[in-house]
Amino acid sequence: MAKERPEKAEETEQMIEKEGGKEAAEVPGGAADGRDMRAVLLSAFGGLNKLRVARKVMPEPQDGEVKIRVKACGLNFIDLMVRQGNIDNPPKTPLVPGFELSGIVEALGGNVTGFEIGDRVMAFVNYNAWAEVACTPAEFVYKIPEDMSFSEAAAFPVNFVTAYMMLFEVANLREGMSVLVHSAGGGVGQAVAQLCSTVPNVTVFGTASAFKHEAIKTSLNHLFDRNSDYVQEVKKISPEGVDIVLDCLCGENTGKGIGLLKPLGTYILYGSSNMVTGETKSFFSFAKSWWQVEKVNPIKLYEENKVMSGFSLLNLLFKQGRAGVIRAAVDKLLALYNQKKIKPLVDSLWALEEVKEAMQRIHDRGNIGKLILDVEKAPTPLVSIILIIYCKSLLSSLWAAPLLISCSAAAPALEMGTVRCIEVGAGTAML
Amino acid sequence: MAKERPEKAEETEQMIEKEGGKEAAEVPGGAADGRDMRAVLLSAFGGLNKLRVARKVMPEPQDGEVKIRVKACGLNFIDLMVRQGNIDNPPKTPLVPGFELSGIVEALGGNVTGFEIGDRVMAFVNYNAWAEVACTPAEFVYKIPEDMSFSEAAAFPVNFVTAYMMLFEVANLREGMSVLVHSAGGGVGQAVAQLCSTVPNVTVFGTASAFKHEAIKTSLNHLFDRNSDYVQEVKKISPEGVDIVLDCLCGENTGKGIGLLKPLGTYILYGSSNMVTGETKSFFSFAKSWWQVEKVNPIKLYEENKVMSGFSLLNLLFKQGRAGVIRAAVDKLLALYNQKKIKPLVDSLWALEEVKEAMQRIHDRGNIGKLILDVEKAPTPLVSIILIIYCKSLLSSLWAAPLLISCSAAAPALEMGTVRCIEVGAGTAML
Repeated sequence: MAKERPEKAEETEQMIEKEGGKEAAEVPGGAADGRDMRAVLLSAFGGLNKLRVARKVMPEPQDGEVKIRVKACGLNFIDLMVRQGNIDNPPKTPLVPGFELSGIVEALGGNVTGFEIGDRVMAFVNYNAWAEVACTPAEFVYKIPEDMSFSEAAAFPVNFVTAYMMLFEVANLREGMSVLVHSAGGGVGQAVAQLCSTVPNVTVFGTASAFKHEAIKTSLNHLFDRNSDYVQEVKKISPEGVDIVLDCLCGENTGKGIGLLKPLGTYILYGSSNMVTGETKSFFSFAKSWWQVEKVNPIKLYEENKVMSGFSLLNLLFKQGRAGVIRAAVDKLLALYNQKKIKPLVDSLWALEEVKEAMQRIHDRGNIGKLILDVEKAPTPLVSIILIIYCKSLLSSLWAAPLLISCSAAAPALEMGTVRCIEVGAGTAML
Repeated sequence: MAKERPEKAEETEQMIEKEGGKEAAEVPGGAADGRDMRAVLLSAFGGLNKLRVARKVMPEPQDGEVKIRVKACGLNFIDLMVRQGNIDNPPKTPLVPGFELSGIVEALGGNVTGFEIGDRVMAFVNYNAWAEVACTPAEFVYKIPEDMSFSEAAAFPVNFVTAYMMLFEVANLREGMSVLVHSAGGGVGQAVAQLCSTVPNVTVFGTASAFKHEAIKTSLNHLFDRNSDYVQEVKKISPEGVDIVLDCLCGENTGKGIGLLKPLGTYILYGSSNMVTGETKSFFSFAKSWWQVEKVNPIKLYEENKVMSGFSLLNLLFKQGRAGVIRAAVDKLLALYNQKKIKPLVDSLWALEEVKEAMQRIHDRGNIGKLILDVEKAPTPLVSIILIIYCKSLLSSLWAAPLLISCSAAAPALEMGTVRCIEVGAGTAML
């Protein structure tokens, strides 16, 4: 990792609180020599108020590293858990969050081959993604196709590699199998659905908040409300259960998931979003999750012919040195992208200064697809936000198709295919 | 399963105890109408003295079943555990043990297609294999190649299907991977070694009793004494561990096995031979095994990117209805056999009346490859047994190559390539 000099930033105020537009402060005493940059800073583990945009000294690539002018960054549920300090062995704060980005190669450290300045790339970063510039070892950097936007590229690595590795490396998905995925409307959920569609005759069951069903229903075979008794719902359709359960919830869902497996089926735990309840880390929810999760005796797996496993992409990359197998997965995924068989689904774009809003949105499970921090995007003034009102009352029992109430000033701030929304009615007002 | 009429046998004496040769008694009151047969009978769970040969009424095939004139039966470690009652939900005694056999199709029940009388076959049977005749559903019966002997065919189903399913269905063995297998000299161990050799560049580590090393050393890359600290031995050669651990021991070996996995590696429990200590079921050893086995928190697997699983072929076949996937595996295995890439390794042939000796041999881990009950074989008189004396003293610290002391009368009782042995010196005298 590039070693950054100590922060000497005078931080910006949180843009959200100021209705946007204020430019970040200069690094104190720093000349306008282009060696500082904007970055999202997590000052300490905790709530949203621990996040702010700061000016930091720009990192320079060490041996083996690539320096990337960042265009877009992915925001994942794990970032929310990092903010809360709700992870194993958290690093020290202050830190710049973020594990994936896209951008343009700006410089190369020593001994880097295979890249040139100007290359359009996406990359994994072990923190420090949410900034205007980031450095990361070349083994974590991948060139992107010409027709892949930076937003798509920032939405690609974590979600698609996680989905691919689970389905094809851990669980060995094959024709005719069935898959249950939680948070089917999220980034990984949608990647799972798309990858399953590349294998003949795969049945995908998913759980998601009811209001997302209309938007994602074509991507899965069977959708259940996230608050429903999904075990019973699956068994109604497939009494024998499913071949693969992908669980990002943990807690009691582990026992349920293993129980739902067919013989020779595979349960994969890849997240523990159940641990997150409030805005800050809750010891109670953590302990509850740890205790509720079923410790499994391998003799039970022997008798039932079942497979229990876990998948942590970040550990695999940054603690366990498996960049090689990940690159092989990325190559296969980019081939599928080029064949137009998969395509990242971007939920919405946010300025760095809007990171709190974005994080609240993922906390509220408001997103359908991926949340992207667009580094070049100016914060959107409140008055220009498109309101998507889910008119629950208009269609009985279902969340309705979105009714767009557009303020004309908003148009320039939006990219095609992406939306910003405030849920009203039964939803959560985020602003 | 064929429903057998109640046993009305007057049992034979155990042949071993009588020095063999005594013919089994007739079924009381039964005419010589050919409707009774010899079978190994387990009168109650316990020691070797619960086994005897009895005359039983011959089963007739029910709808969907195939009646097979049995030529040879496989003897597996699970049969020893059945004898002790050391299995989950044991059936009622008296029973005829045995789960696999080879022979000739003698009759077909209703609605059976794909087989004809006279077909040479191998089959899985849910008990009742160790008899002159057995019936089993057609879905568990497989035609065998012309050049496959009945001994080989009886050694094939349990060992090779178990090995194949674990390596290719559960663990997804691929080029360049590494495998650790315990009891490498046993039937499954040797099948694992052979199947691994069909994939390029696979490294196989094995544990086995030292005296077997000379005989099996060419089939594996690295062999360790079964009493050695194999964790350290493996790590000396491969500090990162291995990709696949196949464990038939259970107990503390589960934790050790999972600890030895590389990231993305798979541990498979497929037996619990550690539970067997003495001749009869030991509650202490059972409890020790259950307690010692590490119950695993899926969050640990998440953090370490590991897979823990279990494989029970018998449950898969007879409780979980997976005959289809097993037939697909058998088809692939027979293709490999026809390509001369795999070949069952037969340790020794025994008459039904010698079942106690055979079982003692597997209990003592004396076998190298598979123990076969040869239904047409007459018990071997004691004086004709070949003594293979392992002259530990001749080669310092290593069990020596076998020194054959042959009694001339033995020759007619032997099949090519199979041996009967008594270990002396530090070995266990079995007769």
